[in-house]
Amino acid sequence: MLEALKQTVCEANLELNRRGVVIYTWGNVSGIDRASGIMAIKPSGVSYDNMKPEDMVLVSIETGETVEGKWNPSSDTKTHLALYRAFPELGGITHTHSTHAIVFAQAGRDIPALGTTHADYFYGDIPCTRELTKEEVESDYELNTGNVIIETLKARQIDPLSCPGIVVKNHGPFTWGKDANASVYHAVVMEQVAEMALKTLLLNPDASIAQYVLDKHYFRKHGPNAYYGQGGK
Amino acid sequence: MLEALKQTVCEANLELNRRGVVIYTWGNVSGIDRASGIMAIKPSGVSYDNMKPEDMVLVSIETGETVEGKWNPSSDTKTHLALYRAFPELGGITHTHSTHAIVFAQAGRDIPALGTTHADYFYGDIPCTRELTKEEVESDYELNTGNVIIETLKARQIDPLSCPGIVVKNHGPFTWGKDANASVYHAVVMEQVAEMALKTLLLNPDASIAQYVLDKHYFRKHGPNAYYGQGGK
Amino acid sequence: MLEALKQTVCEANLELNRRGVVIYTWGNVSGIDRASGIMAIKPSGVSYDNMKPEDMVLVSIETGETVEGKWNPSSDTKTHLALYRAFPELGGITHTHSTHAIVFAQAGRDIPALGTTHADYFYGDIPCTRELTKEEVESDYELNTGNVIIETLKARQIDPLSCPGIVVKNHGPFTWGKDANASVYHAVVMEQVAEMALKTLLLNPDASIAQYVLDKHYFRKHGPNAYYGQGGK
Amino acid sequence: MLEALKQTVCEANLELNRRGVVIYTWGNVSGIDRASGIMAIKPSGVSYDNMKPEDMVLVSIETGETVEGKWNPSSDTKTHLALYRAFPELGGITHTHSTHAIVFAQAGRDIPALGTTHADYFYGDIPCTRELTKEEVESDYELNTGNVIIETLKARQIDPLSCPGIVVKNHGPFTWGKDANASVYHAVVMEQVAEMALKTLLLNPDASIAQYVLDKHYFRKHGPNAYYGQGGK
Repeated sequence: MLEALKQTVCEANLELNRRGVVIYTWGNVSGIDRASGIMAIKPSGVSYDNMKPEDMVLVSIETGETVEGKWNPSSDTKTHLALYRAFPELGGITHTHSTHAIVFAQAGRDIPALGTTHADYFYGDIPCTRELTKEEVESDYELNTGNVIIETLKARQIDPLSCPGIVVKNHGPFTWGKDANASVYHAVVMEQVAEMALKTLLLNPDASIAQYVLDKHYFRKHGPNAYYGQGGK
Repeated sequence: MLEALKQTVCEANLELNRRGVVIYTWGNVSGIDRASGIMAIKPSGVSYDNMKPEDMVLVSIETGETVEGKWNPSSDTKTHLALYRAFPELGGITHTHSTHAIVFAQAGRDIPALGTTHADYFYGDIPCTRELTKEEVESDYELNTGNVIIETLKARQIDPLSCPGIVVKNHGPFTWGKDANASVYHAVVMEQVAEMALKTLLLNPDASIAQYVLDKHYFRKHGPNAYYGQGGK
Repeated sequence: MLEALKQTVCEANLELNRRGVVIYTWGNVSGIDRASGIMAIKPSGVSYDNMKPEDMVLVSIETGETVEGKWNPSSDTKTHLALYRAFPELGGITHTHSTHAIVFAQAGRDIPALGTTHADYFYGDIPCTRELTKEEVESDYELNTGNVIIETLKARQIDPLSCPGIVVKNHGPFTWGKDANASVYHAVVMEQVAEMALKTLLLNPDASIAQYVLDKHYFRKHGPNAYYGQGGK
Repeated sequence: MLEALKQTVCEANLELNRRGVVIYTWGNVSGIDRASGIMAIKPSGVSYDNMKPEDMVLVSIETGETVEGKWNPSSDTKTHLALYRAFPELGGITHTHSTHAIVFAQAGRDIPALGTTHADYFYGDIPCTRELTKEEVESDYELNTGNVIIETLKARQIDPLSCPGIVVKNHGPFTWGKDANASVYHAVVMEQVAEMALKTLLLNPDASIAQYVLDKHYFRKHGPNAYYGQGGK
């Protein structure tokens, strides 16, 4: 079932390697079919070398049970489930171990908006979550990872599609989008802007950008008045 | 019309990806035919994967209107137009999101001339423009991006072909040259010298170079007394 | 003899180059056959270009003598021997000159555990050994390199398979695992986490991680309660 | 004439690009035939794409005149000539614009010996020359570049083959060896150890290495007591 979704999600996982944001089996991508309430996600610890659409695992968003698949789903499955439940606008989710996004996660700092490359995709700073408590880690770790992401977005009143990613403290980036491919795209962009931000801060710790530039760049690509690309033609 | 120009400009856009100065559809290259007053420029938001010469958009320098093409021109079209109008010596313009050039743009600093690699192509520091005002951003952003480049070059009395590039504050690099290929070449060189300059400043914040070395290197490759290459044979 | 082992060890040495953790003939991998007490190791100073399984050198763990092979074994052979003798759980050992692991070796600092990428493979900080004394260097250098690794692990009460690598001060990384391939895998991971750690420390010199996160990540992949991958199915 | 030398030197120039130490036409390699007193060197400003052995230029060491060749020789020809004249043990010379070696040149600092990767090839710190004077730059620049290299090596009593490279202040690296290939090898190694040294200094500005470790590593690969590689078999 859901063959097209499994195909898309498999391809999106392979794209992680091609774009250099993961090595080995690190990272995972999922995509959701909202009509049936089922997501397709990468199997856990399976090599990318021969990964095929039929290796994807189908999981029910409501119950978290595997609906179809011969493998265990990604160990981060509960994080994906929590995000899909909290934000109906998400169509795909990606987790990577890309170097510079992880640097901000390990440093416990937001990835600051310092330029228009960032502003074209992420409206404002990309948040870094708080640290999970000992209880949260020991009780239901992957679910609580999802919960701290949700908590952070809500506390900062962030619309998830306007800032399609976050870094979890000491862990790393999660990104999302309208489908699996968009979530991978945002993972690649986040890695690029994280590298730019790190190096900018080393050169000028006081670097900043005016809010009106952020507004301009984000809204020329997104929303009703967007004029980037071929949409208006 | 202008088939050769469209071919050159298309190839020059593809070269951006091969040289690693852009990912996805980021960046854009244009080239101009001065006789007809028309430039060829990359379409907006179209993937590089199957880009063909006939996808290039022809735009009138005088009116800014599309003369030929099935796509919207790059969203940075007005920036290109402003530069072609201000500087008749320009034959091609490139905009990228290369990492280290953007670092200087985000830090709001000139890329300082610190070595002969820089001096072989850029005579003196590569300027960083001032920040655009709120009014400039909100009224006619891309045109004003061109205007602040022009303002900066004129205020510093810089001949554009002797310093074939600039970084726009919080945005990124624009480079140019006698044709589209030269502008791409300068984009690649700027990224290299920006990386060298950033790392030099981290190692020695007081690094500098003597003016007479800058003079020597620039003028052995450029101008009437150049002796680099095969020109004198 | 031991054709399968030579094949595996040869392939593992070639993998070093493909993964970008060595250039030229730098680095070496060995694997051991515990039943016969013999290890296969890369020959010294031979190019990777045409390296074949029959170029591997078989060395007796007990005597250190070459049992089979047309080349001299790696100049680091005695370091490998010392580690195999001290830790019966090791099945493979890798030495590389990967850039960021060497940076910590040259700085004389442990690679600190700052995130879950690190914690998934290395339980706690990756130690940096003390400097060898003049006597240790001049008398039996490669053997003493092994000895200082053993001394460091024992002094810190580290189980080698829970922290499958170390950096030797001013020298570089040695990693190990249950077989040759695992030791290469750990060499690649160490390089990744070393780069992440270096850049994290440049951004936030006080970065740290809670012990309970280290426990969680390490033990979800290792030991009796592991649930990562396909093991539990 | 000297077909084998031209072949070797051509191949060595192409290797610069493959190893990532130059882009475009940057850099140049020469090799010498001591019997005839002639060197083969890359032509100036010619693309690597179709470079062939017959494009190499043969130049007399004594007179500096072109003996054979259809192109102008590299603009750095006089630097190569000065080094060959001063040091009869040199068989090949390479000049690159590799990023991290240039960083030390621009910072005006020696590349310090901080680890065994460095010590395996360069015995002690890799010197950075003094700045050329205005007179030296304006009168006979490329010859004086050679002269300041010679002056630096002699003032520090360095045997060129024990430290097969240097960085010229604000310019970049020159390396050499027993033949053209060895000089390229040393250019690649210098770039690697320069990157390691830069990042080590950022992590620990007081990093250092004991002299007895430098002695051990250099002399296990070089000189009468060397035991690395297959030489002793």
